[in-house]
Amino acid sequence: MKKLSVPDETIRRLPKYLRTLLSMKEQKREFVSSNQIAEFTYINPAQIRKDFSYFGAFGTRGTGYEVEHLIKMVKEILKLDSKPKAVLIGAGRIGTAIASYTGFGRYGIEIVAIYDNCPDKIGKKAGDITIKNRSNLSEIKRKNIKLAIIATPPQEAQSITDTLVKAGVTGILNLAPCYLNVPDNVRIRTIDLAMELGMLPYYT
Amino acid sequence: MKKLSVPDETIRRLPKYLRTLLSMKEQKREFVSSNQIAEFTYINPAQIRKDFSYFGAFGTRGTGYEVEHLIKMVKEILKLDSKPKAVLIGAGRIGTAIASYTGFGRYGIEIVAIYDNCPDKIGKKAGDITIKNRSNLSEIKRKNIKLAIIATPPQEAQSITDTLVKAGVTGILNLAPCYLNVPDNVRIRTIDLAMELGMLPYYT
Repeated sequence: MKKLSVPDETIRRLPKYLRTLLSMKEQKREFVSSNQIAEFTYINPAQIRKDFSYFGAFGTRGTGYEVEHLIKMVKEILKLDSKPKAVLIGAGRIGTAIASYTGFGRYGIEIVAIYDNCPDKIGKKAGDITIKNRSNLSEIKRKNIKLAIIATPPQEAQSITDTLVKAGVTGILNLAPCYLNVPDNVRIRTIDLAMELGMLPYYT
Repeated sequence: MKKLSVPDETIRRLPKYLRTLLSMKEQKREFVSSNQIAEFTYINPAQIRKDFSYFGAFGTRGTGYEVEHLIKMVKEILKLDSKPKAVLIGAGRIGTAIASYTGFGRYGIEIVAIYDNCPDKIGKKAGDITIKNRSNLSEIKRKNIKLAIIATPPQEAQSITDTLVKAGVTGILNLAPCYLNVPDNVRIRTIDLAMELGMLPYYT
């Protein structure tokens, strides 16, 4: 894996390309040009070609890139081909909505367990998965799970993060509206829907 | 409003400051320094001071900024002080989770209506709001609503966007995993949770 030689910005654009490529595949398209990808991602075609060239993908003039091949390649680079497993913490409204969401499967990611600390929820189902007691969270270390989604109230999010990190998690999608401290080797993405919406009125 | 003289990057940082300031207020803190805001936002203190200075907010050496005053100021700039109203389209799992989410209120935004096209859902409640028939969506023009959240399947998102834009909406938070075409005067933020999660395995 040529991890060090690829700029982080390129890595961050790859999931956007992947999303576009997956829809193209669903529309049964076999080839795609950088111009067509540009139309959907708002990234300029020269940048797209440059990004792909880092991984040795070169389109053919006239026909472009082979969709299926490019998907395979991008998934490999993003380590999505190894079918990564994730756990979800918090079986509240957002948590259960996420548990039933099928969209993660498109990226090859499977949510394998849900944890909550509410006795009324433990043992019940969210989507197809039985909700487990949060006190068992450290078992994910044994299962070698590296990804977690946090959908708990913000007051609980930091202590859960600490437990996750201790159990070896290195990638966290945080939906609690707060900043979380993690060591340098852990990657965290915080999505705060209210904050995102709060950004829009300025432009209206 | 000194809209033109403020860089867009500053505007985009303001909601992050606001989130931090709101938690500080909840913790009953009266003053905050740029260094303290920096700790939570990972934005450097000099940048924070510069951003605030655009709006004439200058901290006092030793005590820093007055939390309450800064919140008021940032809310004013972001036009959140006028209590903007938003509508939600899609009363599926994510939509209903959002309808019950209280976090938008912290930013002064109120979800005033939910629309769906499923006969089984219309007339039922999501959170405290009755789900309306999506065929009535254009009524938001009369109500002068400028903000919308899309939580529908991706196949329906573009046609809904077109209806919203025609009805005068200029700010859209899109949770459908797809790119949407909007005119230049419309601001759109797309949050694709699967894509966000799909970015993490590379770093694990």
